[in-house]
Amino acid sequence: MNEFGLIADLVLSQTVTRDDVLCGIGDDAAIIEPDLAIACDTCNEGVHFQADWGPHAIGHRALAVNLSDLAAMGAKPTHALLALSLPELDTDWLSDFKKSFFKLASAYNVELVGGDTTRGAMSMTVTVIGRVLKPLLRRGARVGDAIYVTGELGAARLAYEASKGRLAPQTEILRRVMHTWHYPTPRVNEALAFAPYVHAAIDLSDGLVADLDHIARQSGVGAVIDIDKVPVAEALKQTVAGDEACRLAMSGGDDYELCFTVSPAYHNDLLALAEQCACPLTRIGEINAGSGVSFERAGEAIDLEIKGYDHFARS
Amino acid sequence: MNEFGLIADLVLSQTVTRDDVLCGIGDDAAIIEPDLAIACDTCNEGVHFQADWGPHAIGHRALAVNLSDLAAMGAKPTHALLALSLPELDTDWLSDFKKSFFKLASAYNVELVGGDTTRGAMSMTVTVIGRVLKPLLRRGARVGDAIYVTGELGAARLAYEASKGRLAPQTEILRRVMHTWHYPTPRVNEALAFAPYVHAAIDLSDGLVADLDHIARQSGVGAVIDIDKVPVAEALKQTVAGDEACRLAMSGGDDYELCFTVSPAYHNDLLALAEQCACPLTRIGEINAGSGVSFERAGEAIDLEIKGYDHFARS
Repeated sequence: MNEFGLIADLVLSQTVTRDDVLCGIGDDAAIIEPDLAIACDTCNEGVHFQADWGPHAIGHRALAVNLSDLAAMGAKPTHALLALSLPELDTDWLSDFKKSFFKLASAYNVELVGGDTTRGAMSMTVTVIGRVLKPLLRRGARVGDAIYVTGELGAARLAYEASKGRLAPQTEILRRVMHTWHYPTPRVNEALAFAPYVHAAIDLSDGLVADLDHIARQSGVGAVIDIDKVPVAEALKQTVAGDEACRLAMSGGDDYELCFTVSPAYHNDLLALAEQCACPLTRIGEINAGSGVSFERAGEAIDLEIKGYDHFARS
Repeated sequence: MNEFGLIADLVLSQTVTRDDVLCGIGDDAAIIEPDLAIACDTCNEGVHFQADWGPHAIGHRALAVNLSDLAAMGAKPTHALLALSLPELDTDWLSDFKKSFFKLASAYNVELVGGDTTRGAMSMTVTVIGRVLKPLLRRGARVGDAIYVTGELGAARLAYEASKGRLAPQTEILRRVMHTWHYPTPRVNEALAFAPYVHAAIDLSDGLVADLDHIARQSGVGAVIDIDKVPVAEALKQTVAGDEACRLAMSGGDDYELCFTVSPAYHNDLLALAEQCACPLTRIGEINAGSGVSFERAGEAIDLEIKGYDHFARS
């Protein structure tokens, strides 16, 4: 959660509470009785994407980031609604947008059941619906749990920094990380596979440290990351030397990997599942009785100043 | 549906179809098994509203137009998600927005369960969820049905024309129609009361003729409006002379009244219900075996060229 959203959400707090809401505002998705998960995320041009990414990437991303929210909730996606605003009617643009949006929807048997198409600044708000077998909440972490992340972190951040001219990866590396940034892969099937073991989960949109901090705060626990264990994207390591790569990987957003906690007794079961899913899975730390996110190296606490990825602060 | 949305929706047609979708794209809301209704509508600054309406009106309207969609589907609202984009973080603005949004939500016991707050051009996409007892589809109209509308039509159109300097109502009239335009009242309770009798329904967002045409086309029937029966808003009649007031009332959008068809055998039952709801209800015409929307006066067919209210065409 960036500062903008955090403050806005605080102001918008409400009073109505219904008995059929099993999980309301404050997690990756809401859960409504008996098993309906629902979430919506907006992608705005100039904030979450640039128009020059092209409609194909934009269409993929608009749905992918929402499916990632359902994944983090342990929900199987079923339906979507698309509210699309465009400054002008361009059927070629729409056609390319549609290709990637529906390709991703088809991959999960998601039917688009509604929405709105209107004139306005380029923006898409996707609402996704899914069914939950076992809800994966942010608030379920327990002291002693091991902390895991899927995939590699920091490729999207490298692409973002390169787009701002602040980092200059090699051409081939740049091409790859741009693709990773523009086409995030929601970890839907992986989340459903890991779900029976998971105590708490979140998807990484604002960066590992910021997002893991949500789990820590909402669970009333602390989280320690062993910074030598963080799966830093190869591309980032090849571009940035030493600990700075790890720092970027932990603070960089837009990874759309999963972070979750599990009793350490199931470590081998998880690794076996990860292999079945062909999903890289790394144990990066532990839940303790403290608070917030802290760091260690070779068993020694170290100080790091890491903030989340703030869309509002981007320039 | 304005031209922009119509063409965009055509391009965005998909191939996935799920067995649990009882009503997909093309009605006021989707219905998912067993009884879940869901809809989402976007309000963009400069298109659906102006920033100078102020946050209180904007907050009301963002939710009201969505509740109106649920009403037209015969659904009882239960939950909402709010995706709010703002160019800057203004807690005073948010606080006023919140007041009217949550006041309306509370009136229907609707809990806000999720959403997104992000930086961008001022825009809000609200997703609403409800439960359907008897779905009110657009495609259910039958030959011989009487056509009804709730309330009065054209006040919002008068306000819009006045805001563009094209009509100049008296000061007190202007004040009243601006309020009607800015604070539409969704006909939720009325729709639930009338539902057992209704064959087809739609809410009036694009204008009576454009919206009734959806019922006609989707039902494979024709609709005849007796133009002397149309409940033209008093304010509009006081400002515009003769048939032009009726023409504006039939083509003007943003009324958020209900239009529905019922067997004429139930006319008296409907009037009794309308009185119980304190809801003005007018029989304005009949469904026939033709196609499209046509007009008559004193039993004689007349020619009128009326188009819907096109947000994309607004200047």
